[in-house]
Amino acid sequence: MPLRREHKELINLMPLQTGGMLTEAAKEALVEFGDGYSVCDFCQGVLCNITNPPIRDFVQKLLPQFLGCEVATITHGAREAKFIVMHSLANPGDSILVDGNRHYTTAVAAERAGLNIIEVPHSGHPEFRVNIEEYEPLIKKHAPKLILLTYPDGNYGNLPDARRLGEIAQEYSIPFILNGAYAVGRMPVSMEEIKADFIIGSGHKSMASAGPVGVLGMKKKWEETVLRKSTRHSNKDIELLGCTVRGVPLMTLIASFPKVKERVQHWDEQVAKAQWFSAELEKLGFIQLGEKPHRHDLLHFEAPALYEISKRVRERGYFLYKELRERGIWGPQPGLARSFKLSTFAADKQQLGLVIDAFKAILNKYS
Amino acid sequence: MPLRREHKELINLMPLQTGGMLTEAAKEALVEFGDGYSVCDFCQGVLCNITNPPIRDFVQKLLPQFLGCEVATITHGAREAKFIVMHSLANPGDSILVDGNRHYTTAVAAERAGLNIIEVPHSGHPEFRVNIEEYEPLIKKHAPKLILLTYPDGNYGNLPDARRLGEIAQEYSIPFILNGAYAVGRMPVSMEEIKADFIIGSGHKSMASAGPVGVLGMKKKWEETVLRKSTRHSNKDIELLGCTVRGVPLMTLIASFPKVKERVQHWDEQVAKAQWFSAELEKLGFIQLGEKPHRHDLLHFEAPALYEISKRVRERGYFLYKELRERGIWGPQPGLARSFKLSTFAADKQQLGLVIDAFKAILNKYS
Repeated sequence: MPLRREHKELINLMPLQTGGMLTEAAKEALVEFGDGYSVCDFCQGVLCNITNPPIRDFVQKLLPQFLGCEVATITHGAREAKFIVMHSLANPGDSILVDGNRHYTTAVAAERAGLNIIEVPHSGHPEFRVNIEEYEPLIKKHAPKLILLTYPDGNYGNLPDARRLGEIAQEYSIPFILNGAYAVGRMPVSMEEIKADFIIGSGHKSMASAGPVGVLGMKKKWEETVLRKSTRHSNKDIELLGCTVRGVPLMTLIASFPKVKERVQHWDEQVAKAQWFSAELEKLGFIQLGEKPHRHDLLHFEAPALYEISKRVRERGYFLYKELRERGIWGPQPGLARSFKLSTFAADKQQLGLVIDAFKAILNKYS
Repeated sequence: MPLRREHKELINLMPLQTGGMLTEAAKEALVEFGDGYSVCDFCQGVLCNITNPPIRDFVQKLLPQFLGCEVATITHGAREAKFIVMHSLANPGDSILVDGNRHYTTAVAAERAGLNIIEVPHSGHPEFRVNIEEYEPLIKKHAPKLILLTYPDGNYGNLPDARRLGEIAQEYSIPFILNGAYAVGRMPVSMEEIKADFIIGSGHKSMASAGPVGVLGMKKKWEETVLRKSTRHSNKDIELLGCTVRGVPLMTLIASFPKVKERVQHWDEQVAKAQWFSAELEKLGFIQLGEKPHRHDLLHFEAPALYEISKRVRERGYFLYKELRERGIWGPQPGLARSFKLSTFAADKQQLGLVIDAFKAILNKYS
């Protein structure tokens, strides 16, 4: 039986997926480089130096320009990039300072590296804001080896004042990682402007790539530490185990890049669309969590009315996913109805109008 | 300009690539699951527990049966699997004992984990055999925390006596990793029969998958150590950073699996084909390195006559790759002519006949 994704053609609002849908060029690259070690045809020993296909140009020129960094490399994804930096710059037992909205993989990567994480708390329900001014007292108290900010976080789509944190990190000379898994490839973001030491992006989350693949940018001064070479194999990066994404996800990242670079220029339209959509859903009694006005396509809603329905129907929380799917919409994580995340990034305003109408119809059907 | 692989349709003899060419089912899965986080549609938090697509069944049932192990998981590739085991079972400063034919990534993974590697030497030119009996004195001398055997190695395609090493490892109670990146998916191999503690395979190298993706099998007794969960996120594997191959390479691995399972049953035909091909090239004055009679499709040849030609032509070593490409053959790493590796795995006997004729024609052309 062939492996199928039945909802592939639906309107997609799943935050994990809206920034990772392939461009036409990426779909071609996917087929062209589908076979195993397809990118290694002309390899001379180092993935990021391969000139055919043009990986070197992408990694050494296009990516640093795009990320606003001095040196870039390819990783298996954002979490793997975080581990690489943590494992290179901190030692077991060290502490790192992270935002209270950090992705779970920040904690798991730190645990894998033997590090303690100190969290800067968020403001709690309903906005869950991270106040950058709270970093400084915690820096003084814990002397962290690294600072990390999730920009935006994947739960509420909040965008804290990263630039201010960059200034604080510089003042205390603590390396600062900007986890931009939901930023890089969606919105303009520059490591240099934010004054971060590292910037991390996710190809499959936000750069129109097959999964998994990530990007890691850094200041030149960290190159020797993070991209240190093996003593026995002098051209091989220790933290990359030689080469990371030796296959097709990297080629889709490269193929999509021109479109991705272009699309971040239209970020203001994305934000306006998200705000309009959020306001329309709030008219239905939904409550948008996170910052208001919202500045990202990732939106988290509470839906008390849908939750009430889920308590009295046979499918429980799954009723919402089923009702939406029947209406041509793929959105909330199947099973969730009380609160769920949606992303307006991939849908146009007309499609979002259909989504709003669908929610209205579902509420009416069960009222 | 679209990204192209111009030699995609040629007869492929490149050892990195012959076992990773996609099956028809994998080509379909590639397109179906090309978008970003495509496998996460119905995720409940753990990649290897996803039932739609049927990842759980593959990882928890099909793979352990196939590998002859008790517990299996998915990794980004063989090198990442080696690092996971090393990082879980040994501490910085510990020593591990590996074969002299180990892949470079074994050394780099050990270095990343802070481990010293002790090498069991091979016998040198021309056979480069690893004698398993040499492990025991080195075990006594160094008390290694892990033993690793490359089976076969990627330079000569030698198959040392893995089962004997399994007995020795058991006798000394030292965990034993079988790196089967060139075995799993090509030839029958069972962790249990070999008495290893871990077995590692590569999807893109030998299991007809897009790259990168790997498999890691282990004894049940290592599950708690290697697949230990995060203290903060109790369903997330620390060493996997939650989930590893969250995308299309995993789906090609699953899609190809029925064919891969079937093809290993024809390994005797593969060995016969490799031996015949090797004998034919030796008639041309090439010298096959590694074990004789050879028991794997990965063959390493010295070609003194081609080397002599390369010294007097403008393209140097690249002349060979160009001459072969013109004849519809993709094989030795571009630039190599003095000695090079070829794999007979993906070509049939008729195609290999064309390859032999091509080498004859090239030798004649420059004689």
